[in-house]
Amino acid sequence: MHEQDGLNLWMAVKNIRELAPLIHNITNYVVMNSSANALLAIGASPVMAHAEEEMADMVGIASALIINIGTLSQPWVKSMFKAAAQAATRGIPIVLDPVGAGATPYRTDTVRELVAATPPTIIRGNASEIMALFGARVRTKGVDSTVASATALEAAQALQGSLGSVVCISGETDYIVGDKALFRVRNGHPMMTRVTGLGCTATALCGAFAAVTSDPARAAAQAMAVMGIAGEMAAEKSEGPGTMQMHFLDALYRLTEDDITQRLRLEA
Amino acid sequence: MHEQDGLNLWMAVKNIRELAPLIHNITNYVVMNSSANALLAIGASPVMAHAEEEMADMVGIASALIINIGTLSQPWVKSMFKAAAQAATRGIPIVLDPVGAGATPYRTDTVRELVAATPPTIIRGNASEIMALFGARVRTKGVDSTVASATALEAAQALQGSLGSVVCISGETDYIVGDKALFRVRNGHPMMTRVTGLGCTATALCGAFAAVTSDPARAAAQAMAVMGIAGEMAAEKSEGPGTMQMHFLDALYRLTEDDITQRLRLEA
Amino acid sequence: MHEQDGLNLWMAVKNIRELAPLIHNITNYVVMNSSANALLAIGASPVMAHAEEEMADMVGIASALIINIGTLSQPWVKSMFKAAAQAATRGIPIVLDPVGAGATPYRTDTVRELVAATPPTIIRGNASEIMALFGARVRTKGVDSTVASATALEAAQALQGSLGSVVCISGETDYIVGDKALFRVRNGHPMMTRVTGLGCTATALCGAFAAVTSDPARAAAQAMAVMGIAGEMAAEKSEGPGTMQMHFLDALYRLTEDDITQRLRLEA
Repeated sequence: MHEQDGLNLWMAVKNIRELAPLIHNITNYVVMNSSANALLAIGASPVMAHAEEEMADMVGIASALIINIGTLSQPWVKSMFKAAAQAATRGIPIVLDPVGAGATPYRTDTVRELVAATPPTIIRGNASEIMALFGARVRTKGVDSTVASATALEAAQALQGSLGSVVCISGETDYIVGDKALFRVRNGHPMMTRVTGLGCTATALCGAFAAVTSDPARAAAQAMAVMGIAGEMAAEKSEGPGTMQMHFLDALYRLTEDDITQRLRLEA
Repeated sequence: MHEQDGLNLWMAVKNIRELAPLIHNITNYVVMNSSANALLAIGASPVMAHAEEEMADMVGIASALIINIGTLSQPWVKSMFKAAAQAATRGIPIVLDPVGAGATPYRTDTVRELVAATPPTIIRGNASEIMALFGARVRTKGVDSTVASATALEAAQALQGSLGSVVCISGETDYIVGDKALFRVRNGHPMMTRVTGLGCTATALCGAFAAVTSDPARAAAQAMAVMGIAGEMAAEKSEGPGTMQMHFLDALYRLTEDDITQRLRLEA
Repeated sequence: MHEQDGLNLWMAVKNIRELAPLIHNITNYVVMNSSANALLAIGASPVMAHAEEEMADMVGIASALIINIGTLSQPWVKSMFKAAAQAATRGIPIVLDPVGAGATPYRTDTVRELVAATPPTIIRGNASEIMALFGARVRTKGVDSTVASATALEAAQALQGSLGSVVCISGETDYIVGDKALFRVRNGHPMMTRVTGLGCTATALCGAFAAVTSDPARAAAQAMAVMGIAGEMAAEKSEGPGTMQMHFLDALYRLTEDDITQRLRLEA
């Protein structure tokens, strides 16, 4: 019920604040502002860039690459392939968010081709998305999941086995499936589902933690734990999703070792 | 001065919260985040997607389609035509926001072609935009109206007659022109004009209400009433447009039957 | 330590509020919402537009043009050239933000070509960006500066001399280099660096002030002073970057002559 030592979460937060790793995001239009703000609030240095002309150079100075297909189109997809290849060559972490996989064949096919070309270090999605990526038949509702996170656990384990990627299913309980470890994070608050893009923010934070934590399963669990803890702290001060969004950024910025010790609900 | 029964507004809000209709938005970059957050706050499920490759599929699972030309360009316009055609085939509501019509010939021509190809269920704009769409000569100032909403009433009625679309003119008083009904909504607060994209949010909410209310004129009036009421509630707690934007989302999320009963200022 | 008379800052704020100049922004996806909100909060009328088809028309009704390369790609760059040429023809101020210049050759080359084709009225960037634009070798970190603003003063003076543009280096102290004047603005708060896009907001405000103040060096100093003062006012009420972002907009909206008199820290 604590296991903070198992995550070294506070150490990771301090490292992000001290090193301010550059996180290169190819992400969707909806969350560019909120993802950049979350990365800044936790102490990282975000950059958003998608032009094919600068993919190799931008990945070349980054400490992690985020690929998020939330508002995908062909020019962006082309850059995602290019950036992923360069990130793999450099050996920096790649975090993929298969937003809306299963909602349209275009999304499902694109993420499958992306993971086949360059297996990501971490894949983070909701249960519907992880199941769609695996190939399970699942009803989806746009970008929202229609099933509980546990439902996708088998799909996540199969994906982890075939790709070697850490697979993170977010939901009321977050499951992080690594080759050896399985982490369950039980932090969070229901109002988080009423703020757009907090899943995408979780993906961006996976990149920040993977930039300072060598074990990607642990990095993903760190990110999900920080999301959930900051979400709880924000919800306690909020009257709705508007104030929530703002207090969430403040909580990331102000997060202390005590907050982590008192709140972390992790099972390894 | 009340006529809540005429709108069935509370019932519609409850239906949105219960059914969480999927609203497909092809909208502008400025408001993607705020529109998604407003749709989530009222209880709907937003998705933002614009790639031509997935238009038919995404419209295929949506309960309403929003088309907003705020930051239009040719690839997006192509997808707007495709999505509108598919929405008409499926019989789901189409809501058009002619942002900046009249400001440039490109905008004016594009919206005219869009409505000619597929008459929307609802058109929502400010007075300048509605007049420009109708073909009246009007001075515009970018995306802001230069005239009062009543000035566009004749243009709205003519557009309604020729297209069959419900035409909603937003302003200090909102006018909703249907084939039989004319609704006037007098809710709202001047500070709403200092928050970017609240007009676009109104358009998105028209889609959410049209997904649960079969009469599109009533749906548009419901959306404008909720916008105005939430705006008043937010303004009372706000010191400026920054706090306003946040409290507005909270107000959408917390809206009660009492708030509606006490505040609605509608003339049918 | 005061020199308010030297800026006529309060007069300029009043003029923006009264005239509501239309500011045409070709800017990046991350900051479109926050820049539009800041322009509305100070009293200007923002429009975001990037389609080549409407560049000449939109510039044709604008009082200033903002070009920001934060998420550049070829179709947008083409529109930037077209818009800048039209702005120069019309004689309206052009403000350039070379976001991330130095981070990739694509960015550095693009801004150099832009300034060579049409020298901007004002260039505003951080020290790394100004040095990269000048051609100095400088390590950059994505869109964040790696050096103090004073480091770029020589590069700024050289750029001013060769292009004739006012060059504004933002940082703990902001330097505004004109052909005759050198302004130093010492307002601001460290938490501003934890909110994404406040540099881009400063650029947008340079456009608003240049629309009402004929001397571009003074206009840039006015914008930086208002940014810093509003940032201080916001920071005093904020617990982190989330609340900061919101109170900053409120502060722009509520700014009084007394706030300016009491806070302005300018050296001319």
